[in-house]
Amino acid sequence: MAVGDLSLPHMLPIQGVKIGITQSYIRYKNRRDLVVFELAEGSTVATVLTQNAFCAAPVQVVKQHMAVAQPRYLVINTGNANAATGEIGLKNAQTSCTALAALTGVQSSQILPFSTGVIGEQLPIDRLVAGLPNALAALDADCWVDAAHGIMTTDTLPKGASEQLVLDGVTYTVTGISKGAGMIRPNMATMLGFVATDLAIEASLLREMLAEVTEQSFNRITIDGDTSTNDACVLIATGQAGGTVLQSRDDPRFSAVMQVLSRVFIRLAQLIVRDGEGATKFISVRVEGAATTQECCDVAYSVAHSPLIKTAFFASDPNWGRIVMAIGKAGIDQLDQSKVQVWLDDVQICRDGGAAADYTEAQGAAVMQQSEITIRIALGRGEAVDTVWTCDFSYDYVKINADYRS
Amino acid sequence: MAVGDLSLPHMLPIQGVKIGITQSYIRYKNRRDLVVFELAEGSTVATVLTQNAFCAAPVQVVKQHMAVAQPRYLVINTGNANAATGEIGLKNAQTSCTALAALTGVQSSQILPFSTGVIGEQLPIDRLVAGLPNALAALDADCWVDAAHGIMTTDTLPKGASEQLVLDGVTYTVTGISKGAGMIRPNMATMLGFVATDLAIEASLLREMLAEVTEQSFNRITIDGDTSTNDACVLIATGQAGGTVLQSRDDPRFSAVMQVLSRVFIRLAQLIVRDGEGATKFISVRVEGAATTQECCDVAYSVAHSPLIKTAFFASDPNWGRIVMAIGKAGIDQLDQSKVQVWLDDVQICRDGGAAADYTEAQGAAVMQQSEITIRIALGRGEAVDTVWTCDFSYDYVKINADYRS
Repeated sequence: MAVGDLSLPHMLPIQGVKIGITQSYIRYKNRRDLVVFELAEGSTVATVLTQNAFCAAPVQVVKQHMAVAQPRYLVINTGNANAATGEIGLKNAQTSCTALAALTGVQSSQILPFSTGVIGEQLPIDRLVAGLPNALAALDADCWVDAAHGIMTTDTLPKGASEQLVLDGVTYTVTGISKGAGMIRPNMATMLGFVATDLAIEASLLREMLAEVTEQSFNRITIDGDTSTNDACVLIATGQAGGTVLQSRDDPRFSAVMQVLSRVFIRLAQLIVRDGEGATKFISVRVEGAATTQECCDVAYSVAHSPLIKTAFFASDPNWGRIVMAIGKAGIDQLDQSKVQVWLDDVQICRDGGAAADYTEAQGAAVMQQSEITIRIALGRGEAVDTVWTCDFSYDYVKINADYRS
Repeated sequence: MAVGDLSLPHMLPIQGVKIGITQSYIRYKNRRDLVVFELAEGSTVATVLTQNAFCAAPVQVVKQHMAVAQPRYLVINTGNANAATGEIGLKNAQTSCTALAALTGVQSSQILPFSTGVIGEQLPIDRLVAGLPNALAALDADCWVDAAHGIMTTDTLPKGASEQLVLDGVTYTVTGISKGAGMIRPNMATMLGFVATDLAIEASLLREMLAEVTEQSFNRITIDGDTSTNDACVLIATGQAGGTVLQSRDDPRFSAVMQVLSRVFIRLAQLIVRDGEGATKFISVRVEGAATTQECCDVAYSVAHSPLIKTAFFASDPNWGRIVMAIGKAGIDQLDQSKVQVWLDDVQICRDGGAAADYTEAQGAAVMQQSEITIRIALGRGEAVDTVWTCDFSYDYVKINADYRS
């Protein structure tokens, strides 16, 4: 029950990136569950990773490898998260790298492993390793759509975005994919997201750019408030389209590149919410007039995580008392309720902390019929503004998560 | 679908407390929705109130009145929370007190008002005031069962506890009622709870005792993580059973009284979880080996609030990967996953951060069939231990909260 238009755009290949997908029977029959990215020599790569203390074995290996080498390959499996798997899990994640290194002639540290799927079961590493030659044989530049399929778990649809921009007469492309539909409340990180461009970007600048665009995209979505053990987002710059290297924020091209990256990342992040487990509504929670960005996020997440609000939206019930409850429990110091305003789209439901005198239930009900709704909250404390995206909470969320492993 | 035995014990009257219940048509037809408590002169009273910044109008009035007088009456309505109702709501809460004061001859400040029900609609104060004479006419000592019914909202069953203890040859009674089934994650406070004893307890000691027992009872339960605007807990000591006034912790009777209060409060708190909206399982989350009580609570609430864990328990699925995910996202600084142990009752599912070698899915599935389950988590960091109680997350939770207002 995805919300809105989730169709893939034309997924433009990126010069310097080849992708191979194969079936390695990690968990499911009849689906391609192993994806290998090959990156041209000289590519720069940046990653942001889950802050969950039970971070998965592959996440630990990515941290180690990123500290010592520039990656040439990514190896991604779905069906098994290789998380909470102890020493064996760590060894398995390393084995996936050494096996791929032996087949490709690069250093094992130049390979980044990613896993997604069930937590707490050992990765069937023999099957994964056995699949690697087929994945390499399938390497091709025009495989982004297949890759978007290849990393799905409970996602109902593949997720991707692709854009081009022209700078100094050179055409550059940005293409990315993401996955995730539950256990979504990234914390300075994301579910799996892979974005590449053929622009050349200096490595430390690339890390800063990734941190900034992630903060405003994957770090502003939540489905159920649960932060995965495997969240990871990767930004790749191959430099294969030509042109000079983007070295600093002072480069006149910087803001144009950031605008495109930002659009691609926000699209990839919102696609995850639109395909949220059981989602029937896409909800933007915009908080204005806060003293700080942190206050905006505290209030927005308090609203976005409230099961009472999410079930009311599922029922199309403009039960705005639950919204003020969630504002009130957000822990904002010295909040003055008499300065709080709340709107559903353009309909003001709460004025100065009480019911808006001109509000009618019919107005609220009309907005609630829509599949995309903005809850706008003004706190009257300052100038900060921020937005978090989430979805409603339906019977199907319970059904999907009660059935997932069986 | 309440979990376990929720039956009321014999609800012993408390000397010095009379209760009157009537029907005032606040929201529903055919139910008694207005409760008045009359307390003997000389009673001491302590309250703990919601920390929600959008605290309801009656909560604000209770704070004002507790600052200036010792209460003689409580007036409680269900069906309307009188929260997010602005100046009109505040005036209505005050009117309920002045009207009752006029009928009883006490000061308006000696009356404490409490409301529970829908947020954001104005209280029909005329109907409430019209019901007061009937409530007063019904005053009787043996009305605790009716009162437990009279404060219910989405509760499926009335909730109460009653115990006696003998100190220095005098028999004292403690009787209490509570309500609440959703919007439950009290924050230094509780849903509505009213407990009385005929022991005499000095007022400031009574406040300390209430704070302590609340912290280990109502402040250790959660259903959906949503903190109500109206949470309130009241402890009354009438002193009518005779004996000397309990003045300090050094009094040899102190620990015996605290033990009884603690049992009554924990029972009343657990009853709320057992009757949680849509609950099919009663789950104790016990965290040991933490560095501090705060760490215990952070981990326990992270587990108890996770929709993924709650839906897995509903499905009787021992999906323990979700438990370690929730431990990992609890924000514990420098958590060493290799020291973490997890049990379902006595079955160890996670040893040293990975799957316990001797664990079988059949063992976990057997525990999961029970209606009462303890998740025990050892962090290996220190000596602190604490427990939080919660319930699972079912289709019926969604159904109840999607339908509540309609």
